[in-house]
Amino acid sequence: MRKSILRFSITLCLVSSISAQTAGGTLLGFTSGRADDQRAAEAKFDSYLKAENLSAWLKRLSARPHHLGSAYDKDNAEFIAAQFKSWGYDTQIESFDVLFPTPKTRVVEMTAPEKFTLRLNEPALKEDATSGQQDEQLPTYNAYSIDGDVTGPLVYVNYGRPVDYEILEQAGIDLKGKIAISRYGGSWRGIKPKVAAEHGMIGCIIYSDPRDDGYFQGDVYPKGAYRNENGVQRGSVMDMPTYPGDPLTKGIGALKGAPRIDAKSAPTLTKIPVLPISYGDALPLLKNMDGAVVPDAWKGALPITYHTGNKTPTVHMKLEFNWDIKPIYDVIAKMPGSERPNEWIIRGNHHDGWVNGADDPLSGQVAMMEEARGIAELAKTGWRPKRTIVYCAWDAEEEGLIGSTEWVETHAAELSQKAAVYINTDSNGRGFLGMAGSHTLEKFINEVAKDVPDPETKMSVWDRLRATQIVNGTPAQRNEAMSRSDLRIGALGSGSDYTPFLQHLGIASMNLGFGGEDGGGSYHSIYDSYDHFQRFVDPGNVYGVAMAKVGGRAVMRLANADTLPFDFGDFADTVGQYVGEVTHLADTMREDTRVLDQQITSGMWKAVQDPTETNIVPKVKDPVPYLNFAPLQNALAKLQDSVRNYQRVSAGKQPSPAQQAALDEVLYKTERALTRSEGLPRRDWFRHQIYAPGFYTGYGVKTVPGVREAIEQRDWREAAEQIMIVSRTIENFAAEIDKAAKMF
Amino acid sequence: MRKSILRFSITLCLVSSISAQTAGGTLLGFTSGRADDQRAAEAKFDSYLKAENLSAWLKRLSARPHHLGSAYDKDNAEFIAAQFKSWGYDTQIESFDVLFPTPKTRVVEMTAPEKFTLRLNEPALKEDATSGQQDEQLPTYNAYSIDGDVTGPLVYVNYGRPVDYEILEQAGIDLKGKIAISRYGGSWRGIKPKVAAEHGMIGCIIYSDPRDDGYFQGDVYPKGAYRNENGVQRGSVMDMPTYPGDPLTKGIGALKGAPRIDAKSAPTLTKIPVLPISYGDALPLLKNMDGAVVPDAWKGALPITYHTGNKTPTVHMKLEFNWDIKPIYDVIAKMPGSERPNEWIIRGNHHDGWVNGADDPLSGQVAMMEEARGIAELAKTGWRPKRTIVYCAWDAEEEGLIGSTEWVETHAAELSQKAAVYINTDSNGRGFLGMAGSHTLEKFINEVAKDVPDPETKMSVWDRLRATQIVNGTPAQRNEAMSRSDLRIGALGSGSDYTPFLQHLGIASMNLGFGGEDGGGSYHSIYDSYDHFQRFVDPGNVYGVAMAKVGGRAVMRLANADTLPFDFGDFADTVGQYVGEVTHLADTMREDTRVLDQQITSGMWKAVQDPTETNIVPKVKDPVPYLNFAPLQNALAKLQDSVRNYQRVSAGKQPSPAQQAALDEVLYKTERALTRSEGLPRRDWFRHQIYAPGFYTGYGVKTVPGVREAIEQRDWREAAEQIMIVSRTIENFAAEIDKAAKMF
Repeated sequence: MRKSILRFSITLCLVSSISAQTAGGTLLGFTSGRADDQRAAEAKFDSYLKAENLSAWLKRLSARPHHLGSAYDKDNAEFIAAQFKSWGYDTQIESFDVLFPTPKTRVVEMTAPEKFTLRLNEPALKEDATSGQQDEQLPTYNAYSIDGDVTGPLVYVNYGRPVDYEILEQAGIDLKGKIAISRYGGSWRGIKPKVAAEHGMIGCIIYSDPRDDGYFQGDVYPKGAYRNENGVQRGSVMDMPTYPGDPLTKGIGALKGAPRIDAKSAPTLTKIPVLPISYGDALPLLKNMDGAVVPDAWKGALPITYHTGNKTPTVHMKLEFNWDIKPIYDVIAKMPGSERPNEWIIRGNHHDGWVNGADDPLSGQVAMMEEARGIAELAKTGWRPKRTIVYCAWDAEEEGLIGSTEWVETHAAELSQKAAVYINTDSNGRGFLGMAGSHTLEKFINEVAKDVPDPETKMSVWDRLRATQIVNGTPAQRNEAMSRSDLRIGALGSGSDYTPFLQHLGIASMNLGFGGEDGGGSYHSIYDSYDHFQRFVDPGNVYGVAMAKVGGRAVMRLANADTLPFDFGDFADTVGQYVGEVTHLADTMREDTRVLDQQITSGMWKAVQDPTETNIVPKVKDPVPYLNFAPLQNALAKLQDSVRNYQRVSAGKQPSPAQQAALDEVLYKTERALTRSEGLPRRDWFRHQIYAPGFYTGYGVKTVPGVREAIEQRDWREAAEQIMIVSRTIENFAAEIDKAAKMF
Repeated sequence: MRKSILRFSITLCLVSSISAQTAGGTLLGFTSGRADDQRAAEAKFDSYLKAENLSAWLKRLSARPHHLGSAYDKDNAEFIAAQFKSWGYDTQIESFDVLFPTPKTRVVEMTAPEKFTLRLNEPALKEDATSGQQDEQLPTYNAYSIDGDVTGPLVYVNYGRPVDYEILEQAGIDLKGKIAISRYGGSWRGIKPKVAAEHGMIGCIIYSDPRDDGYFQGDVYPKGAYRNENGVQRGSVMDMPTYPGDPLTKGIGALKGAPRIDAKSAPTLTKIPVLPISYGDALPLLKNMDGAVVPDAWKGALPITYHTGNKTPTVHMKLEFNWDIKPIYDVIAKMPGSERPNEWIIRGNHHDGWVNGADDPLSGQVAMMEEARGIAELAKTGWRPKRTIVYCAWDAEEEGLIGSTEWVETHAAELSQKAAVYINTDSNGRGFLGMAGSHTLEKFINEVAKDVPDPETKMSVWDRLRATQIVNGTPAQRNEAMSRSDLRIGALGSGSDYTPFLQHLGIASMNLGFGGEDGGGSYHSIYDSYDHFQRFVDPGNVYGVAMAKVGGRAVMRLANADTLPFDFGDFADTVGQYVGEVTHLADTMREDTRVLDQQITSGMWKAVQDPTETNIVPKVKDPVPYLNFAPLQNALAKLQDSVRNYQRVSAGKQPSPAQQAALDEVLYKTERALTRSEGLPRRDWFRHQIYAPGFYTGYGVKTVPGVREAIEQRDWREAAEQIMIVSRTIENFAAEIDKAAKMF
């Protein structure tokens, strides 16, 4: 479900020109002799990889719509399982029964000032071989919208974020009883109906504006890669920042016979009906809007003057769904470890799509399959991993990470004990390697990226990523990329299957994938097809093979290292940044509040408004108090001490073979120490205290979320409590490092 | 011709809330007793002003098209002259004969991939009473384009600035023999064909993109104020940054019998044919363009994917003009000074328009007329100015500041001796007072602005301007506005009739006008009408009356002060900023050059490009040397010393009445010391060494232009020379202040 974006996950080595970065001879976690063997095995592994396999599987798996509950979804799961089995993996399909609403009635019509019934349909294109499979396609809709039949005036809410509603309040628009029209982007789609409902609105339409997703970016499909006027972004609007997975079985596996809540009372369904539409359907609505002209930052690329709306037009929306329970199929394939079988290296990518899903998720799925086949081939030559490798092809990711969440919830006890690392991929495109995840794995994944060549430039994917941070980054990013030995990896919010591993159980996780040169607008539409993928996303699947090399190295090194390659220096560095950010956030809010309050009370704010427009003077806000960040700063200092001590005692040493397994366990359970069984405020399913999806951003990460969100919500009491909680969390983590240090 | 924009001309008094700023009791240049008399006279003056007069004159003067050479242009001049005469001014019409091309043939057509002939016409609207006067309207065209008949492929050049061509070079597009299509904005229109021709292009089309001037901003005319799909911006493309005025009589008055160069060899005509078009006409051309997708910053608001073009479409352009010599009519009206008649306070606004010109220029013209009538009424009660007041209604401003330039060139010797200050206005809108000009007048004009109430808020226009700098400014602007006693005024580039006064003769000048709440898109079109003005620009002419109050106070105080109210502290402060800016510019260019050169030579620049696109590696540039700015810094230190000394010796003192006239002359000739008879490099007409229009920006000001433009053009030898020249200029100015100090 991840939307392919090149993210500047920001980044020592004082190398200021491009050079081969292969650290030949040494590998994090490996004794020096074994490092050479490992690299030799990797070279052999590379030689097995064939782009033709990716292409053939992609064609086969995307040949028909394969969403949750469809015949072809099950067929694909069985095909994938059969492949893993044929390569020698111990393979099973695990099934769950989950709530999955599909549309029965979808009507949206403008009733005034003129009558217009929306098309709500993506037409077949002769240039796209699978686009005509109407009988099997899911209609355009947002899953987990409630049923509803509402009529009211339409108001344009920009991206539908809390900050957007401040502008509407200033414009004097009463939102009660009205229907929101929001553009996609700026926040995760599920946030839009959530915030609209919080403001008393009765319905929500979400459309793809061509500014963000259409002709503004490039030529539209089928001439070019971008979304045309009929393209619609399907997608789940389940309240995933509260909890993901089956809405009826929070925290437990959705097995047959599991206790279920009533569908109508599930807290993660929306509070108001929601439907996504194309910009072709949105144009007549937006053209007819009254109200004020919106701020420039709200304006899209339709050839109209964008207005807020207020009384015109009036829209009628009727949505009814089949509230079915449907089976889902996760494929789980294991290669047992030869030495430490109870330490699991887990690798996953989902297989379900919204329609044909060639890019999302099959591009990542076929790369993972070729990676798994390469490792299996290598195993046939006698290579064995010390630790157990587990490959997972998840179902029902699109609806809310359901396949992975139900599996993690079902196997939580075992996973808490055995899972060392989870590596996720999803859609894979062309360009630069995106790396995000637990910062204890930052040094490790940097080392992997230095050993994989970029298909286009032949330099390492690490060198190319560093080059783009230097050439295209901000001055701060450029300086960091030029001076820091590791490129800084991003933090994980949500939007793919790492969430239950990382944020529910505290399993160190990473999400990897190429992108940045594969712009396009097929996301969650019928045009995410084999034809579109091969023309625009990764022609010939060459970056798919590069992904298999990255994924394969990561899995093999994690599975086969003498000691798990965790490193705490980069983690402490990044946590230090987060502590700096939340401190700065409070300071900035304090100054901004002071300045704005002064402008309001002095009358200046009102004086500069155009009196011919409606501009409601904002309410004065309470001053932002100084918060006691000392506990957090002391915890950080303790962490830095522990890290330095660990680095000193472990430098150049290996624990005895007998102690290695015990050390491994301490190392991979450090991530568990970052969780808290009570979870985050108002969302106990999310237990990680450093990384979480934002309550009001959805996919977008909030680091040190308890503190950061309390400050953002101006809840100073909670902010003070959360500072104490996060401080203790960091101290607990430091204590685990101290425990590891004693094992040398 | 000025396009109404609220400019943040940036800004001591530590007042942080709104308060009455009237400095009751004292007035710069007035002995304390006379200050009260002056304010009493101003109150009487205010009581004479009637919005109805402005409205009636506006209707009368805009009733028919009144461009250079039209019957109604002469008629308007005679009407204005008759008014001034009737109020008791010594009034004359001065006439000149100037080159004025009008269209004979205008054809633009797309010849491939399909045939399309452009409309090149603005239709009448029933909602606009004067829009149907086709027989008298000038067609849509750019004056001083050469004749031409060219055919070639079209290339989109964004705003047509030198920096835009770097992007096209990177995209690998050969521009020779091709036709440019540029959008309006980003630079003055005359720069677009100039830079296109420098790159070997053979023709230039300029269109109004709805992103900058159309529906993106607001509802279009007649529903709203903004430019509709048929609206075209006429305008001059004469190379005014080289010299303005009649192209045939550079530096001398275009009187009958004056020596004239041949029209075909006039250096300020364009080198290639140019024509402006509407966005309705541009759409079919831009829709059919091949080539790469342009960078986001180049994209407008048409519902298309913007491409560079390269081979498609092909366009044929044929333009022929009547190269006529036409008479122009300046109205000059004097009220002789009672005490120092040879010191002139000159006040001007042009009267010619491109078509009906209600906003541009008549809104300013009628405010000036009411101001002049108010002063005449006051004179009838016995009030007399010490100095001579000269009101000027200029003709032919639109074509290239011709009326004012020819008058200044004709009377250069007398003006050099007598002209103390020139105050210009042009179009006047609704909102905030824009103040720009010589910084020796900054303190004076701030004092004026504190005494005029804003029609909408009743606070002073100064307080409201300060409030918007605090509420809407950058943090730097906000801090300055809160802490500096005077709001910093802008520097003058070009675009209206102050240019010959300030930049050719060194007469201290100001340009004033309200704006910021009067957004609209009637500029230089047939829709700049009385109807449009009264609905959208300044309904009821209330800001016109406010402008008369500002202008009237400025004129009366300058004319009647005991000592001319020049102040050098703010000037030294602002020159100090400029010296800081040019030093910083060299430092920034050095660092940027170093960084980019390194990225190019290391191969990183190439490595991050998408290999499926054309991206030509930029050429490495020579390093930016360290320049010796010490002479400039020493001159600035000398200036600051002289200013401090002058402030000390003059504080609280008045020279003897006998010495006042001599002091006045020294004071107003300080601005002459800022000029140099050799002028600026490659444009000797422009003599001012602190303020000039940019050679590659047109209207946009370049302060310390000799130094700044040499650095921008990477001409280090010239930069070093210009640093010496500007240093001596500043020293000469300081010497004049020393001379004034000795008179106390």
